[in-house]
Amino acid sequence: MNKNLRFLRACRSQPVDATPVWFMRQAGRYMAEYRELRKTHSILALAKTPELACEVTLQPLRALPIDAAILFADILLVVEPMGLQLTFAPGPSISNPVRTEADIKRLKAAGAAAELGCVFEAVRLIRRETEGRQALIGFAGAPFTVASYMIEGGPSDHYKITKAMMADRPDLWDVLMRKVRTVTAEYLEAQVAAGAQAVQLFDSWIGALSPEQYRRHVRPHSKWVLDRLEKTGVPVISFGTGTNGFLEDFAGAGGSVIGVDWRIDLDTARRRIGKKAVQGNLDPVLLFSGKKALKAAVKDIIDRNGGRKGHIFNLGHGILPTTPVDSVKRTAEWVHEMSAS
Amino acid sequence: MNKNLRFLRACRSQPVDATPVWFMRQAGRYMAEYRELRKTHSILALAKTPELACEVTLQPLRALPIDAAILFADILLVVEPMGLQLTFAPGPSISNPVRTEADIKRLKAAGAAAELGCVFEAVRLIRRETEGRQALIGFAGAPFTVASYMIEGGPSDHYKITKAMMADRPDLWDVLMRKVRTVTAEYLEAQVAAGAQAVQLFDSWIGALSPEQYRRHVRPHSKWVLDRLEKTGVPVISFGTGTNGFLEDFAGAGGSVIGVDWRIDLDTARRRIGKKAVQGNLDPVLLFSGKKALKAAVKDIIDRNGGRKGHIFNLGHGILPTTPVDSVKRTAEWVHEMSAS
Repeated sequence: MNKNLRFLRACRSQPVDATPVWFMRQAGRYMAEYRELRKTHSILALAKTPELACEVTLQPLRALPIDAAILFADILLVVEPMGLQLTFAPGPSISNPVRTEADIKRLKAAGAAAELGCVFEAVRLIRRETEGRQALIGFAGAPFTVASYMIEGGPSDHYKITKAMMADRPDLWDVLMRKVRTVTAEYLEAQVAAGAQAVQLFDSWIGALSPEQYRRHVRPHSKWVLDRLEKTGVPVISFGTGTNGFLEDFAGAGGSVIGVDWRIDLDTARRRIGKKAVQGNLDPVLLFSGKKALKAAVKDIIDRNGGRKGHIFNLGHGILPTTPVDSVKRTAEWVHEMSAS
Repeated sequence: MNKNLRFLRACRSQPVDATPVWFMRQAGRYMAEYRELRKTHSILALAKTPELACEVTLQPLRALPIDAAILFADILLVVEPMGLQLTFAPGPSISNPVRTEADIKRLKAAGAAAELGCVFEAVRLIRRETEGRQALIGFAGAPFTVASYMIEGGPSDHYKITKAMMADRPDLWDVLMRKVRTVTAEYLEAQVAAGAQAVQLFDSWIGALSPEQYRRHVRPHSKWVLDRLEKTGVPVISFGTGTNGFLEDFAGAGGSVIGVDWRIDLDTARRRIGKKAVQGNLDPVLLFSGKKALKAAVKDIIDRNGGRKGHIFNLGHGILPTTPVDSVKRTAEWVHEMSAS
């Protein structure tokens, strides 16, 4: 029965009765239920307490007609067992960022992901609740995005320190990326072992790179993770924003579903991606628009897919904090209606 | 003699003895001479005092072996004669942003650019100094980028108010864009009349749009400006960042030179742009790297151009504030050396 979930069928490019839909950051600040929980719990407490992570994961499933749940967690949880100090204030901040050879040497790699047992327990709890209705997606940050946070210590405008290490100390960069990729693969394999029915690798900041930087310094490591994940047997979604300049290379690196942002026409994306399934790609800002414009934008994406198999509807990036819940709900309804066969 | 300047010949895809090079934001905070002037003058005072604007424009020409001067000004100067209040603190801020139909109605359009006589006087002063050595580029912000500042009131992460007007009030958006495009065209025509030998239209934030948003709400207005500028007879550079998703449409909208950011391989850009000249496209962050990596990145771009006519070397976006001047200088030297015929 689980195998026949609409979302999982679309990931495998099998026929579906309607296009499945879910939303990146579908659990979060835009929902009153989430803000209520945040009054008494920090982001890290929500993510690391299995019962709370399960509750937050389920919130959007109660409010929206969506086809998949995504584990509530943060892509930076992995940096703690690697040896870094992570806080949210409210954006993520690492107080001991990685800058030197000694910093990199000190990082734990193989085995470190096992310390995130709270996450795997959350996966088990959520699976019990979603069984037979929605698919559960596990996730991790892709090596570049996680490494850039580890180096910069937080969000960055220009990735100056990251790109300097990449360009001037490719040897150090390589050692760091090998550690991050090992932890990433083990972390996602353990999520699958705990019950995740698909996994998504988020390369949220990859669009800061030139195609040459991506191919030389990042792709081999992303490919290594994606190759390992293929062996788990669950669908793997490889998502990146700003991948337009190297989409063929990005899609060729692995994953059965390629996630794209809103900066590309979906039909162009499909052509460039080839036979794989595609996920996307509504501009999250359009959820602030009135019904007419939003509906037209949803229809444009459905039309550009043109009834082809292997489309999962999503945004081009995460839901923004003050997004009206009604818009999100309507969007999911429209996707199902417009694509119903 | 001026017609034979290397930069102007490359804009026209004529043969050159070496690839011309200049840098977006080549006059600015990364230079000690500029920081010295800023101790006693505001950004607006520098831009609006012809002698000071001339001096700042000339500073990089003394320090760097570059082939073009670009007028020192700001893309938001045009909003003042249109009726808005502009300050820099230090980022640009508009205290009476455009939000309603009445706000748009109140904006001055035809004739407003004539009030920027200080800019045209600066162009005349600079031309006298650069005559026969470097070409002088005038510039303006493209309608989308200027309109988004007018609406948001300053830099924006998501362009929520701008995109909402575009989507929900396309009638208002259209009236606003028609006013902005009129001012933009008249402003650039006057710069050419004063002596600018080429002009660049900066669409710095265009990459925030989906291809559909660009085609429907922006391209007709950019095209209108570019069509008018073609009649001036000087080369027109149409620059945008993040244009990868609609580069053919962007290049087709007009301009004899298309400027691209670093998120695309230069050879791919050339193929997609077609017969026009191309400008770009080094990642500005690479100027913080060591010599070896920087030189390899410059060579990669020269190699990807492969000796074809119609290449102007530049960054993919502006020089960042703390960039080492030596790196900029070396880059210009390498471009000339590596491309010399």
